[in-house]
Amino acid sequence: MLNRVRSAVAHLVSSGGAPPPRPKSPDLPNSTSAPPAAPPQAPRSPPARAGSGSAAPARTVEARASFCRPTFLQLSPGGLRRADDHAGRAVQSPPDTGRRLPWSTGYAEVINSGKSRHNEDQACCEVVYVEGRRSVSGAPREPSRGQGLCFYYWGLFDGHAGGRAAEMASRLLHRHIQEQLKDLVEILQDPSPPPLCLPSTPGAPGSSDSSHLVGPQSCWSSQKEVTHESLVVGAIENAFQFMDEQMARERHGHQVEGGCCALVVVYLLGKVYVANAGDSRAIIVRNGEIIPMSREFTPETERQRLQMLGFLKPELLGGEFTHLEFPRRVQPKELGQRMLYRDQNMTGWAYKKIELEDLRFPLVCGEGKKARMMATIGVTRGLGDHNLRVCSSTLPIKPFLSSFPEVRVYDLTQYEHCPDDVLVLGTDGLWDVTSDCEVAATVDRVLSAYEPNDPSRYTALAQALVLGARGTPRDRGWRLPNNKLGSGDDISVFVIPLGGPGSYS
Amino acid sequence: MLNRVRSAVAHLVSSGGAPPPRPKSPDLPNSTSAPPAAPPQAPRSPPARAGSGSAAPARTVEARASFCRPTFLQLSPGGLRRADDHAGRAVQSPPDTGRRLPWSTGYAEVINSGKSRHNEDQACCEVVYVEGRRSVSGAPREPSRGQGLCFYYWGLFDGHAGGRAAEMASRLLHRHIQEQLKDLVEILQDPSPPPLCLPSTPGAPGSSDSSHLVGPQSCWSSQKEVTHESLVVGAIENAFQFMDEQMARERHGHQVEGGCCALVVVYLLGKVYVANAGDSRAIIVRNGEIIPMSREFTPETERQRLQMLGFLKPELLGGEFTHLEFPRRVQPKELGQRMLYRDQNMTGWAYKKIELEDLRFPLVCGEGKKARMMATIGVTRGLGDHNLRVCSSTLPIKPFLSSFPEVRVYDLTQYEHCPDDVLVLGTDGLWDVTSDCEVAATVDRVLSAYEPNDPSRYTALAQALVLGARGTPRDRGWRLPNNKLGSGDDISVFVIPLGGPGSYS
Repeated sequence: MLNRVRSAVAHLVSSGGAPPPRPKSPDLPNSTSAPPAAPPQAPRSPPARAGSGSAAPARTVEARASFCRPTFLQLSPGGLRRADDHAGRAVQSPPDTGRRLPWSTGYAEVINSGKSRHNEDQACCEVVYVEGRRSVSGAPREPSRGQGLCFYYWGLFDGHAGGRAAEMASRLLHRHIQEQLKDLVEILQDPSPPPLCLPSTPGAPGSSDSSHLVGPQSCWSSQKEVTHESLVVGAIENAFQFMDEQMARERHGHQVEGGCCALVVVYLLGKVYVANAGDSRAIIVRNGEIIPMSREFTPETERQRLQMLGFLKPELLGGEFTHLEFPRRVQPKELGQRMLYRDQNMTGWAYKKIELEDLRFPLVCGEGKKARMMATIGVTRGLGDHNLRVCSSTLPIKPFLSSFPEVRVYDLTQYEHCPDDVLVLGTDGLWDVTSDCEVAATVDRVLSAYEPNDPSRYTALAQALVLGARGTPRDRGWRLPNNKLGSGDDISVFVIPLGGPGSYS
Repeated sequence: MLNRVRSAVAHLVSSGGAPPPRPKSPDLPNSTSAPPAAPPQAPRSPPARAGSGSAAPARTVEARASFCRPTFLQLSPGGLRRADDHAGRAVQSPPDTGRRLPWSTGYAEVINSGKSRHNEDQACCEVVYVEGRRSVSGAPREPSRGQGLCFYYWGLFDGHAGGRAAEMASRLLHRHIQEQLKDLVEILQDPSPPPLCLPSTPGAPGSSDSSHLVGPQSCWSSQKEVTHESLVVGAIENAFQFMDEQMARERHGHQVEGGCCALVVVYLLGKVYVANAGDSRAIIVRNGEIIPMSREFTPETERQRLQMLGFLKPELLGGEFTHLEFPRRVQPKELGQRMLYRDQNMTGWAYKKIELEDLRFPLVCGEGKKARMMATIGVTRGLGDHNLRVCSSTLPIKPFLSSFPEVRVYDLTQYEHCPDDVLVLGTDGLWDVTSDCEVAATVDRVLSAYEPNDPSRYTALAQALVLGARGTPRDRGWRLPNNKLGSGDDISVFVIPLGGPGSYS
């Protein structure tokens, strides 16, 4: 993400000393491979490649760090160099000749125009097999593929202040979802309501006694009903949380200096779950109609949550910030005047008399893409950022950031989809210069030029979207056909067909 | 409101000693009367009338307290007795013969079926004149009606644990709105953007110097633009806050023992502002289409705000409650098992191992009308409740309640309204047994039976809505035509025509 963190890299707290060796595998117990039927994309990136740029002291950490692109791009060393070229900005897609992405997914990406050293977006597209941890009744059972669950998974990760958080999340977040779903394998395949309780210790003496399962029928009549769908939502929410905690624990080993937005799609048992933490966006285009599947989390959209936190926990403001919002920063000469303000409870504005503590910098300021929290960061949910501090200060920003996504659910079985119905995921590089309607128009234009059963049409669409947002080099910049500036940010796009060839096979 | 506060009256903290004499007038400086053109409804209720019921000790305060109905009902002493009769439940409306409500507004109400001693709903319908506090430029100016502003005002107040909070709010909330708007009289009539600053002291030396007005043009280009509309929203939001603070200060004098929901409509300069704090509801029915103008604030809809507060300020839970939600209360024998839960960040559910502190009562429990916060209250925004404590405890509930409304704005000039387009306000007594669609059907049925210019049609509609929710006495209860139980709660309804005769004259 471009400009999302103002000078944040320069203010990072150094991890101190030489970084410990990078762990060989994620710290996740019992990680299960995809079954043979699923495309065997490795969840790991190509081998690390040392940066070739400046070796100035401020860049030491970055220069030491590798960079990588999604494995499914199957980039050769030469291809990797081209993908990393800010001048050419070649659009990258999986090769036509190789193994296609699961679900006939289309993908395209392009690097930024030079604002960060490497492409800080990352992507993942996998089919993940979940083997049940145990029988719900407590009896250990034979591992058998037939009793497990498969989910399709797509993830876009838009890094800031470095690319390592996005890289780590793209390798591991689906493993955390897999882990969270292990308890639910049997429950989700059983049409009866989820049990209120599970046994505490799998396979422990007595845990096969079904009296441990307090089913709804044995409880108060006022017991709240919990749906299967809400269990999947809870699993995804907690997976984000555990991913963030793992980043906190292992950030030195993984050299994770920054953070990332995460936009994730899980298809499981007929439903599409779209989980978003950050300012990427997902929309469904169905028969030309636009269905928003996410919303962005920024200092503007989360103003009241942030102000409330600052109001309830003033120590987090460190005496440097005020939780009140003013239309601009208050100046000392305005002491005693009455100025427009709003607090954590207000959506409207009113006048208040300016006092000394109102001269502090506002917790939230600016509008649109210029909105900032603590004068530093333009996105308020995501993963990582455990070291992020306020510019020229040691005040930590992380307490105000949330790693929890908003999850929206779309029931794929409730509508007869045609091959032109798609779910489009994009990082903000796409959406900064492209409206939902423009995306829908491109969907129509590109897909109608291909046969409905041509599997390359979704990659062509992703490429068209990326190209349309990047523009072409002209007049000392990347420009769109209308001569406005194109996006100078990293741009990454997934196109997931909802009714196309190869769908939910 | 029926059953909204479980046994709350029995757990009220007594104010102690004899109540001080009731103040003669609201503690609001410079309250301004309506101008001669506006209907001169007095903002005060009829003379207090001692309750005629039991004089048992537990009821001493209530028996001593008066009760009242809205002045615009023009009830005689006999009429007041009939309005207070739980057995007959006669529907009350302003008399056909008297002065009509402003804006041809229709109104009807009925008392509950015996669950509280008196009708705890209150209502107010006024035209309020706002005289500017001063010229914005600081120069004191001649009071002159032409330079002031009029707003139309409707308020529904649904009391709980006593009727005094609703009564006090019905008399005073519009005065607080009036007070908040005084600074804005000139600003709102000036098409240029609101000034960033006002002078600190009206009429003080030098304050007529316009250099005190820091207009947008003199500020940073990044200054946030504030609209006139958002100033009115801010004024209403702060008026609710000041009303609540006045209740806190004067609750002993006014014998305010409980609280109330507040649903308020302000019409000002072409726009309708609907402010809601509680579980009353407002909808617009326009050409048969339903436009929701409010949402309800209950432990269910505000779960995450409440849980977040309990999580950030655990001392407010007093060691008695857990901020986590479980589908039902956890039992000691379930210690160590893994049970469904969700925390303040989650919308989905997951399993967690039950620990000792999970045995505490959940901060939020139950569903629908049975949802409760701290096992006590079923509504989470409103005015008053400053003495409310948890059942069998001294733990205060007020810190979790918000007095801030959500304000929605409807621009009346953006649509050509016909005489059948209405804004319907109702307390939960209406909405508990009547859907939005049923209200829209009644709007169509009743209004089509009257001439479009018949001014009594909106009162007839309000009466039909109240009657339809109350039902008729049959089979030991009040029953609807489909034999389901009607509402046993107080029911109050305003019908505001958006394009009818006498509208915004």
